[in-house]
Amino acid sequence: MRYQLYYWTGIQGRGEFVRLALEDAGADYADVARVEGDRVLQPFLEGKMPAMPPFAPPFLKAGRLVIAQVANILHYLGPPLALVPRAESRRLQALQWQLTIADFVAEIHDSHHPIAGSLYYEEQRKEAARRAEDFRRQRLPHFLGYFERALVWAGGRHALGQHSYVDLSLFQLVRGLEYAYPRAMRKQARRLPHLRALAERVEERPRIAAYLASPRRLAFNTQGIFRHYPELDG
Amino acid sequence: MRYQLYYWTGIQGRGEFVRLALEDAGADYADVARVEGDRVLQPFLEGKMPAMPPFAPPFLKAGRLVIAQVANILHYLGPPLALVPRAESRRLQALQWQLTIADFVAEIHDSHHPIAGSLYYEEQRKEAARRAEDFRRQRLPHFLGYFERALVWAGGRHALGQHSYVDLSLFQLVRGLEYAYPRAMRKQARRLPHLRALAERVEERPRIAAYLASPRRLAFNTQGIFRHYPELDG
Repeated sequence: MRYQLYYWTGIQGRGEFVRLALEDAGADYADVARVEGDRVLQPFLEGKMPAMPPFAPPFLKAGRLVIAQVANILHYLGPPLALVPRAESRRLQALQWQLTIADFVAEIHDSHHPIAGSLYYEEQRKEAARRAEDFRRQRLPHFLGYFERALVWAGGRHALGQHSYVDLSLFQLVRGLEYAYPRAMRKQARRLPHLRALAERVEERPRIAAYLASPRRLAFNTQGIFRHYPELDG
Repeated sequence: MRYQLYYWTGIQGRGEFVRLALEDAGADYADVARVEGDRVLQPFLEGKMPAMPPFAPPFLKAGRLVIAQVANILHYLGPPLALVPRAESRRLQALQWQLTIADFVAEIHDSHHPIAGSLYYEEQRKEAARRAEDFRRQRLPHFLGYFERALVWAGGRHALGQHSYVDLSLFQLVRGLEYAYPRAMRKQARRLPHLRALAERVEERPRIAAYLASPRRLAFNTQGIFRHYPELDG
């Protein structure tokens, strides 16, 4: 199966969680907008395609299926890419992890955009300062502490006791936060030994290492989910 | 199978999306905290149970499985409760709908709590006024307009062309918003004929009607996701 991933160019964004799974599995895929431009997304978003319109990118075209929402795409890709255990109960566990990661990703985004995604950061700096403070003090330790505990519960090396798309997403989360909130993350480091070791192991996987060294991996920047604004980092 | 739903007492909250599915299907379930108190949630959240710890309620105990995250719970319950079509591609569509609903629910919550869930509304009124304005003008019409279009795409009567847990969640969304943002919702009404008709049909389903008339259905209040603060309604 040749997959077609649709996501905005210029940022890693939510598309990166899907991209990491496709890259790790060595899947045959096209990153369509990077070849043809962002305009290829529009007919899908405007409901001009035969498939159910997605609310937002990323979405994945697999044959006639068009699947949106990161956790849904990964739930679908898990079995064919061998990135999830086979048992239904384990797939539910993977989905539960991924949905909690998705909730955290939304909060990470809102730490710099607490008022509106449609406004520039500069238009909500004061509110962002307040939200980011709560984020650093409460939400970041709360989510990461939970992931660390759940990882230990699972045996300490893998979210699901074996390699899966969840590990890839946890890697992205850790690296993204280290870029955006380096000071806050240094403070957390000692509390998160398993999570940090997992991120290192993911980074050393041959296909991931090759991907990260390729031009396909964009750098983190201040357009995406993970943004480094020093004044928000305490 | 006797299901055990775990969710905070005193609010409908995210638990209500699961409760509606259990009620509509006439499932055998216990709403555990309402019988035994909120303290029964703690051992799960603290990782003192054999199952993987959930990040937050609601979670569902089904035999030895403990499943968290609303969309995940509904994905699991869909087939045994006959609340989702059987085909895998249709279950993915249901999950996609539900995840977009979940994203919207988080934004609805943050419209009155843009800075921190741990602070009172009164401590973030100014920021809430600003966020709620964007919510009413941009996000509410954007999400509801999308749901209306996707509903029309599916034939106009049901999110999945047949009754499913998604219809139940759309009903909850519409009624919750009508409670919280009555003025904003009146302005949207003419744009949402299919969504409104769907909510009415759900409300007339015998088991749902019986549930809504029962003491098991709590009233909307200013503790939950959907909160009515007139000053936020424009």
